[in-house]
Amino acid sequence: MKRSPENDAAAADAFVEDVEISGHIIDSLILPKVLDCISAAGGTFRIKTISIGQARNDASYGLVEVRAESSEQLADILGTIADHGAIPTVKQDCHLIAADMNGAFPEGFYSTTNQRTEIRMRGEWMDVAAQEMDCGVVVDESVPAAGCVPMSEIRAGQQVVVGHAGVRVFPHQRETRGDSFEFMSSGISTEKPKAPQIRQIAQEFVRARRESGKTLVVGGPAIVHTGSGDHFCELIRGGYVNYLFAGNALATHDIEQSIYGTSLGVYLDRGDIADSGHEHHLRAINRIRRAGGIQQAVDSGVLTSGIMYECVRHGTDYLLAGSIRDDGPLPEVITDVLEAQRLMREKTRDVTFCLMIATALHSIAVGNLLPAWVKVVCVDINPSTVIKLSDRGSFQTVGMITDVEPFLRALVDQVRQLESD
Amino acid sequence: MKRSPENDAAAADAFVEDVEISGHIIDSLILPKVLDCISAAGGTFRIKTISIGQARNDASYGLVEVRAESSEQLADILGTIADHGAIPTVKQDCHLIAADMNGAFPEGFYSTTNQRTEIRMRGEWMDVAAQEMDCGVVVDESVPAAGCVPMSEIRAGQQVVVGHAGVRVFPHQRETRGDSFEFMSSGISTEKPKAPQIRQIAQEFVRARRESGKTLVVGGPAIVHTGSGDHFCELIRGGYVNYLFAGNALATHDIEQSIYGTSLGVYLDRGDIADSGHEHHLRAINRIRRAGGIQQAVDSGVLTSGIMYECVRHGTDYLLAGSIRDDGPLPEVITDVLEAQRLMREKTRDVTFCLMIATALHSIAVGNLLPAWVKVVCVDINPSTVIKLSDRGSFQTVGMITDVEPFLRALVDQVRQLESD
Amino acid sequence: MKRSPENDAAAADAFVEDVEISGHIIDSLILPKVLDCISAAGGTFRIKTISIGQARNDASYGLVEVRAESSEQLADILGTIADHGAIPTVKQDCHLIAADMNGAFPEGFYSTTNQRTEIRMRGEWMDVAAQEMDCGVVVDESVPAAGCVPMSEIRAGQQVVVGHAGVRVFPHQRETRGDSFEFMSSGISTEKPKAPQIRQIAQEFVRARRESGKTLVVGGPAIVHTGSGDHFCELIRGGYVNYLFAGNALATHDIEQSIYGTSLGVYLDRGDIADSGHEHHLRAINRIRRAGGIQQAVDSGVLTSGIMYECVRHGTDYLLAGSIRDDGPLPEVITDVLEAQRLMREKTRDVTFCLMIATALHSIAVGNLLPAWVKVVCVDINPSTVIKLSDRGSFQTVGMITDVEPFLRALVDQVRQLESD
Amino acid sequence: MKRSPENDAAAADAFVEDVEISGHIIDSLILPKVLDCISAAGGTFRIKTISIGQARNDASYGLVEVRAESSEQLADILGTIADHGAIPTVKQDCHLIAADMNGAFPEGFYSTTNQRTEIRMRGEWMDVAAQEMDCGVVVDESVPAAGCVPMSEIRAGQQVVVGHAGVRVFPHQRETRGDSFEFMSSGISTEKPKAPQIRQIAQEFVRARRESGKTLVVGGPAIVHTGSGDHFCELIRGGYVNYLFAGNALATHDIEQSIYGTSLGVYLDRGDIADSGHEHHLRAINRIRRAGGIQQAVDSGVLTSGIMYECVRHGTDYLLAGSIRDDGPLPEVITDVLEAQRLMREKTRDVTFCLMIATALHSIAVGNLLPAWVKVVCVDINPSTVIKLSDRGSFQTVGMITDVEPFLRALVDQVRQLESD
Repeated sequence: MKRSPENDAAAADAFVEDVEISGHIIDSLILPKVLDCISAAGGTFRIKTISIGQARNDASYGLVEVRAESSEQLADILGTIADHGAIPTVKQDCHLIAADMNGAFPEGFYSTTNQRTEIRMRGEWMDVAAQEMDCGVVVDESVPAAGCVPMSEIRAGQQVVVGHAGVRVFPHQRETRGDSFEFMSSGISTEKPKAPQIRQIAQEFVRARRESGKTLVVGGPAIVHTGSGDHFCELIRGGYVNYLFAGNALATHDIEQSIYGTSLGVYLDRGDIADSGHEHHLRAINRIRRAGGIQQAVDSGVLTSGIMYECVRHGTDYLLAGSIRDDGPLPEVITDVLEAQRLMREKTRDVTFCLMIATALHSIAVGNLLPAWVKVVCVDINPSTVIKLSDRGSFQTVGMITDVEPFLRALVDQVRQLESD
Repeated sequence: MKRSPENDAAAADAFVEDVEISGHIIDSLILPKVLDCISAAGGTFRIKTISIGQARNDASYGLVEVRAESSEQLADILGTIADHGAIPTVKQDCHLIAADMNGAFPEGFYSTTNQRTEIRMRGEWMDVAAQEMDCGVVVDESVPAAGCVPMSEIRAGQQVVVGHAGVRVFPHQRETRGDSFEFMSSGISTEKPKAPQIRQIAQEFVRARRESGKTLVVGGPAIVHTGSGDHFCELIRGGYVNYLFAGNALATHDIEQSIYGTSLGVYLDRGDIADSGHEHHLRAINRIRRAGGIQQAVDSGVLTSGIMYECVRHGTDYLLAGSIRDDGPLPEVITDVLEAQRLMREKTRDVTFCLMIATALHSIAVGNLLPAWVKVVCVDINPSTVIKLSDRGSFQTVGMITDVEPFLRALVDQVRQLESD
Repeated sequence: MKRSPENDAAAADAFVEDVEISGHIIDSLILPKVLDCISAAGGTFRIKTISIGQARNDASYGLVEVRAESSEQLADILGTIADHGAIPTVKQDCHLIAADMNGAFPEGFYSTTNQRTEIRMRGEWMDVAAQEMDCGVVVDESVPAAGCVPMSEIRAGQQVVVGHAGVRVFPHQRETRGDSFEFMSSGISTEKPKAPQIRQIAQEFVRARRESGKTLVVGGPAIVHTGSGDHFCELIRGGYVNYLFAGNALATHDIEQSIYGTSLGVYLDRGDIADSGHEHHLRAINRIRRAGGIQQAVDSGVLTSGIMYECVRHGTDYLLAGSIRDDGPLPEVITDVLEAQRLMREKTRDVTFCLMIATALHSIAVGNLLPAWVKVVCVDINPSTVIKLSDRGSFQTVGMITDVEPFLRALVDQVRQLESD
Repeated sequence: MKRSPENDAAAADAFVEDVEISGHIIDSLILPKVLDCISAAGGTFRIKTISIGQARNDASYGLVEVRAESSEQLADILGTIADHGAIPTVKQDCHLIAADMNGAFPEGFYSTTNQRTEIRMRGEWMDVAAQEMDCGVVVDESVPAAGCVPMSEIRAGQQVVVGHAGVRVFPHQRETRGDSFEFMSSGISTEKPKAPQIRQIAQEFVRARRESGKTLVVGGPAIVHTGSGDHFCELIRGGYVNYLFAGNALATHDIEQSIYGTSLGVYLDRGDIADSGHEHHLRAINRIRRAGGIQQAVDSGVLTSGIMYECVRHGTDYLLAGSIRDDGPLPEVITDVLEAQRLMREKTRDVTFCLMIATALHSIAVGNLLPAWVKVVCVDINPSTVIKLSDRGSFQTVGMITDVEPFLRALVDQVRQLESD
């Protein structure tokens, strides 16, 4: 970023650059955000041109002159507003530097968002593949191709984008009100009508199956503890769940309830505590380890019901990621967290809809990986899980504060009803 | 309370009294509590006799010598353990003092619990009527009769019990495990099987209707906001709700949704916000005030659906208690809180089961009035409501942390299923 | 609202009106909101003119043509966007109808917001006094004067504004970033730096005292339960608290701790439970009732410390509003909720800063009464209190999720430090 | 477990065993629990002898005959009550079976609790080392020695205890009221005096340092986000923190604030959001990875302040355990969760006091590893963290619902004050 040459004469001591923004820039609050960023960072702006779309879906266009007091300040401002889609009118190619070591970026690397991004090479804009926040952009000039790569997977010699020049971001824009998800973005109140929300989630499940989308469910053990495993099994049997991401706990307590009828030692049908019930989950894990794994336990008849059983039987691709609170763990659990991230990253490539249920850890992990255009609903009885998700940048997530068991019960009802319509 | 005469010779400087406890004193943790109170208050004890029932329901008996260092300390200890059902073997009549002014007790008044209580007059034990915590006991010696009276209703000249002498309390004892409510008392975890809990609540509704018990529902506006008004209406139409205690907000938003289809301005069927929707509740109240009241609005066809409508049509006795956050309020709202308490007190006399839904204010108010033997379930998505209820002494309340809409939906299903069995 | 004559010829079937908006219409997100409302209600718009301020504090101006399909739809749209400050360019006087009964508005009454509002009479705009949400506007044509009046206080014959014609609203605009409150509006995360927030609140206390502003504290009993009464007393003694609004519980437990050293029966210095401690609050109330009231108890030496004592001694104007969960109550408690609202309304007229601590009931009640330009901070450890406040329209409130005791301790430290600077 | 021979004649169809319990069996509620378990499991009991200690600290003794309807039922009952310290009077040696494979126990393995446990070999009782819940007991008969071993570390051929015979558990007994922790166990209310709780925690820190105990702090990133890193640094510099267990996030944001002054992109001193602040944490990690690690970054002057810096400088032994939501991660992070558990297990061996702050994941993980006699305090603003900890068996944990920043500020003040006394 340097002084904009056309302003040079007029303002010898000014650092100026024209940027343009297009899309639903007023409706989506993008323009206000951009102007706010400029002022907040100590810069000033002048709106040179503005044309505002007449209908909700018409695009608008703004041309804004940004003025700063130093070239560093100008670069800072341009970097910040670039993430909201404001890009300099004077186009440059992106800057590349070769990584000097494995597992780390060069200083000044461009840090990705989860929004659709393009880089400019040899005067052409090209898509960045595998969009994911908090990565770098690695370019293979021979193809040419660009993609997001996490820090730990950088290898020395790879060409890494540095700075904001030649990078443009397309902020995910609000969908029109007709769209089913729009209204849900309005926060985390518990005092809202629940039926329309549940109906919309059911529609996403049905639509994904009909239109060959891929649905990912990220779930915590409360699905089992609250006695809603059966509801979830029905979704799996119906072919609505393409991927299940969970931890050792969900699978363990699911298997516990299959073998002993309890979850965390509590009988799911009666609600009372079993004698020595606290040992059940450990005995369940032990039995699966003795069998060699979940798949083997299903094959050999050790495991005959439950979520994991249905996953095996109906081909739901499940991934169990390890955590330091795991007992056992089950043989399928991936105990290395980087390896688990790698596999999650691979599987999420084609996900079109993601439902997160009652797990902060796994939800935040998956939220980090998904691009902004994948619809995500996070259901938890604890508002703090949803608040944390959005604090950490998964802005596209819509939260629903409700109880797992009755939620899943109503969801299955709705899906059934939609299918019979 | 004074020095126990039979220990006089042996311990000139000791203050001793024998107390006895009977009932499920070990199983119900009463004995440990009593011994704990004695030690904690600086006294010592000697268990003179203990006989422990062999079966869960057999009564036990304990005779305990309490020893203190002063007569004041002894009186304190005896007062405290009396609330757990430990009473001196040397019986005395209760002490009475005439109230010297309206609206206040004499100093040293006996302060009631919500447990069944008897007082001793002329050598005879007699029941205290209208049991309620945080009252005094007023005795009419001419009948004779005794009853709980709140402070504000005391009139000068009434005979009020002072001290703990001649008062005995029968702590509410744990029911056997077969009983439907026993298991639910185990706290406020959200990670529990929900179906058995909901089934038990449904059984209470059905049982109350069959056995001519009286069911009280205490409800907050989230019943309407979450879109569960219809479920609740079904319970009213089925004759399961004898009393409804609520505030201006529940009735207002119920009427708002009947007239406008919105609650707090949000369309319940679609979940989106109405134009000028924030005015709807005020216009709804205004219309009812213009009609003269809810009853009149039903009669004149202004109000044709919803919870309040069903209450009017099916004879559910509703009471709307005012609060300082009320708009309007609706004409039926009792704006004086002492008057509201008086009416709530009257109506709760014959209640056998109470379901509290999504209101901290009204739940705590009603919890204060109910004797310990009335079964109470408090349903709220916010754990703090349940925690506050038990902090304030409504120990008999069992809490269920769940979401109102799916809860009521599942409850209605269960009730229907039980009736068709 | 009727068809705009100048468009009549061009579009025989169109209903059109020009509206204008000025102020920080982009920065404050007012323009996007207005455009959104129009589209959402089924209308269309054309931006005829837009001029955008260059600096953060420069005003912008927009002229927007609104087009609807019926005169009703147009009226609806104009009504909705009027609350965001968009007013027709063709000016009309407001419409007045005489109230036909006591305690209710005429149908179609204009329902107020908490924003600054003007009405137009005989071609002149005039301020609406006593601005408060959810009221009507009553006009005294003889003066002339206009003011907000709550529904229950309407008297037959009063002139009430109906419809949106001749009413304009000035939405409270975002303050510049330099302003201390701006940044805090960003939601309810617990994971934020707390020291800057507490410092800003301390600055408000100090500024209000220095500049003869009036500070109102709305408090719940957790101030006493958590052992922070002493910190609060220091603020009172320092002259920082002009008004205290609370309920019976705060005053009762404050007096309990003064007399017995306990709150809800728990010793505040040691944290353990007192023998018969649950009776303390009732005995405390009884003693004050016997004394005739708090003032009398201070005068006669019955009450010698605590929050209420300091209020009496330092002239803090306190108001205790009743609720249905009150024991006693204390003689000063206003048991009629409408009377309590009337008094709260009076006292809040000159309030410039309001701190709400650990009470949902009283905070929502006061939030309903305050105009949007009074700064409000709501401190609670439970996020749901803050969420409820903003669900109910107190948008100007900034929430802080923290614990009362250490919050007040740190606040007092900061105030002390600011004063010694 | 088999039929008790002495009852054979009297009850040919009865299965009977005498068990004895000693310790504070009434005061600690152990006897009620044991009797409850027997009845609940369908057995019956007869109390043959009971002697109850006269003072709070005197031991009691109970001899109870347990009667069941089958040998399986009797075995179940004995197994359950054994965990509460009730052991058969007819002593047997424990049963051992050789593990038949790596990484799994033989079926019927004895599953450990976190209570002190002994096994009986060749007629002698011996301690089980490395006590930890949810493990098996492995015996080396040559020494002889016994110790807890987690499932994944079992090697084929190791001798593993099966069944409950020859195993006795010493339930952790309530401490006397003088003990500082006793009162805090009373639940999760937010409405409690906070100062005494903080004073007691400060006393534990001071005592541990004076008496060569070892203090472990388990912390989440909210320590940094809330701006309390400096308070925590002061504890480290004072030598009060022997171990720090945390994740990548705490260390990352600590380093972010050291380098950029922000945490999650928010300036800690001013509370506002930095331009491009969301990139800071990634740039911070990258810089440390480029330096080779935290230690190297301190040595080379890249990292000059903050929690991790102080740990390096003052020899606090830190362990960073990986999770699937980690960015980077920092080089020191142990990405394999089983390896992390192994290291945590090693380091916790000599811990005497553990403070958990604002992390559910790490707190539950550590809670799983610690024996019941280590004092644990869990501080979180979210009650669900504390509820989850105790749902998962860490019963000895006392919870404190408060805000991190003011908590740590007050804790440091208290420690300072105690040291200056």
